[in-house]
Amino acid sequence: MKIKIQPVDPAKRRPKPADESKLVFGKTFSDHMFLMDYKAEAGWQDPRVVPYQALEMDPSAMVLHYGQGIFEGLKGYRCRDGRIHLFRPQKNWERLNRSARKLCMPEIDVAFQFEALHELLKIDKDWIPHSIGSSLYIRPTMIASEPHLGVRPAHEYLYYIITGPVAAYYPEGFNPVTIYVSDEFVRTVRGGLGEAKTMANYASSLYAAEVAKKKGFTQVLWLDGVERRFVEEVGTMNIFFRIKDELVTPPLTGSILPGITRDSVIQLAAHWGIQVHERPIEIAEVVDAIRSGDMKEVFGTGTAAVISPVAEMSYKEKSYRVQKGEVGEWSQRFYDEIVGIQYGEKEDPFGWIYEVKF
Amino acid sequence: MKIKIQPVDPAKRRPKPADESKLVFGKTFSDHMFLMDYKAEAGWQDPRVVPYQALEMDPSAMVLHYGQGIFEGLKGYRCRDGRIHLFRPQKNWERLNRSARKLCMPEIDVAFQFEALHELLKIDKDWIPHSIGSSLYIRPTMIASEPHLGVRPAHEYLYYIITGPVAAYYPEGFNPVTIYVSDEFVRTVRGGLGEAKTMANYASSLYAAEVAKKKGFTQVLWLDGVERRFVEEVGTMNIFFRIKDELVTPPLTGSILPGITRDSVIQLAAHWGIQVHERPIEIAEVVDAIRSGDMKEVFGTGTAAVISPVAEMSYKEKSYRVQKGEVGEWSQRFYDEIVGIQYGEKEDPFGWIYEVKF
Repeated sequence: MKIKIQPVDPAKRRPKPADESKLVFGKTFSDHMFLMDYKAEAGWQDPRVVPYQALEMDPSAMVLHYGQGIFEGLKGYRCRDGRIHLFRPQKNWERLNRSARKLCMPEIDVAFQFEALHELLKIDKDWIPHSIGSSLYIRPTMIASEPHLGVRPAHEYLYYIITGPVAAYYPEGFNPVTIYVSDEFVRTVRGGLGEAKTMANYASSLYAAEVAKKKGFTQVLWLDGVERRFVEEVGTMNIFFRIKDELVTPPLTGSILPGITRDSVIQLAAHWGIQVHERPIEIAEVVDAIRSGDMKEVFGTGTAAVISPVAEMSYKEKSYRVQKGEVGEWSQRFYDEIVGIQYGEKEDPFGWIYEVKF
Repeated sequence: MKIKIQPVDPAKRRPKPADESKLVFGKTFSDHMFLMDYKAEAGWQDPRVVPYQALEMDPSAMVLHYGQGIFEGLKGYRCRDGRIHLFRPQKNWERLNRSARKLCMPEIDVAFQFEALHELLKIDKDWIPHSIGSSLYIRPTMIASEPHLGVRPAHEYLYYIITGPVAAYYPEGFNPVTIYVSDEFVRTVRGGLGEAKTMANYASSLYAAEVAKKKGFTQVLWLDGVERRFVEEVGTMNIFFRIKDELVTPPLTGSILPGITRDSVIQLAAHWGIQVHERPIEIAEVVDAIRSGDMKEVFGTGTAAVISPVAEMSYKEKSYRVQKGEVGEWSQRFYDEIVGIQYGEKEDPFGWIYEVKF
């Protein structure tokens, strides 16, 4: 398929951020977007890069009623020498297709996903921020666009990619989070949509996050929906525990998002000779390990923050400080290594970097 | 708030259906729609009735990423004498507000919801079908419209109502459904969003529904997400069992949609002197009762079909006919009574009817 390019009228270019360090996440968007339509009888069609603009959506568009929508999140990094990097984008394209299958949506050829993003980055390359730490956030999205009321998989879809520059997540060093363990609300459950990157999982996180916020915590730690006993995720991140000198993270049993940063941390740890255990971990074990001092570090992993150290945890109205609230050595090491690889400052022994060449 | 009215250009009126009996559900929409915006600092504002048209949505509109959206479904009925009826609309407005609270969205004053629908029905009253059984389907919807990437409750929302004529659900008498009991996939779980009428619950039903369809069944029967032992709902309906001469339906424990037809059946049954039990019911008990012949009837309840008799049920690869697949006496009686009340053909001892007067 040939991608049509319709550049923005130069007079209508969106203002570039005056100060990259002041960018608020998710509020500034680049000049262009990629769009492509799907119809059941014709497949994907009409791929195009157009000026960033409002979508025309029928008020009965199925996504607005039945939540048939999935997305991805990745970043474009500008290295000091001007090269543009993506971090394991193939993983995003593959996960988008896994999410699609779970939601009964059409898949998109991985090579074509690369091509679509390539065309978009090419026309908007000046939007990729220049300072190390800042990046271009990329949001591929697929939604059910068919105008139809009645629950079933749609026959028409829209796939689009929007991008926007974002500031460094930690401009002044780590900002550890405090987490509230929810044993009342659950994000998802085995047999549900937990492992798909789909809107439903985020919708079900809102209420508990507000409860946590009111209690003075920044994130929710989710327990499994069946027994409310095993740790699953934190906020919108995967979670890791350093117990003594081993790394523990919950296994991917269907209700947990298979995070790309999660996978990278596991690979890096193994590479460094750290014992990594993907195994069920009970919240009681977590609390015991904090109490005994065996818990050296707790951190979340995700695309936005990369590593998000946890300083404090509240469970059943009791609060626990993790390692006096200080950022752990491993958190810092994983962060430095991954960010270093992303910006081409460190070697990439895993072949994680995809260099975008225009 | 004053509702502005912008009537459609007469030349642009949408074609009215030539044959009301041929209307497909959810595909035909009336000439106008109601819209209203919400901003965190200003509350609900700018209520208006405008021609039915595409919504302009930013591609970063939060609903398209994080699924913050809720809806309602009700019908407008034209009686033989020309009166226009709604069935328990107050229940819809109240449920919309309960769903809103669960999704951290703003509520809408119940009286104003009435007023908004009233204005819309007034301008589109000719769209309400004339034949008994057909009706005007009404879809109030609230979505997070704020352009923003990042998970949190939005600060801007859009509320809208669209309507469209629909044919009688059973033009030639009941069409019993066959149901597939899913013990692999779950719709939701306690601590999740199950009791809210929100997109997430429908999204999580798609995959299992396709599995059921491939196996030759029309609907999925959902079990609880914790033990996969207790019956919850069927498809997008509540479920009732007539065991001997008692009526059993699962209780509203948080993961089940509090259906308005469900509530009406319970009230009618009590009115008729039938024992109704809102109690947990195991799938094993259901199967045993079918086997022993104690299970006289199984039926779903919902706004679209009112009563949907179940002829067959498949559980763990075994299939069970319910009462030889024949429509039960109670299913017919509940259906006739509720539909009779809706169209003003039967007395309404409960005050369920809201007459729309223009």
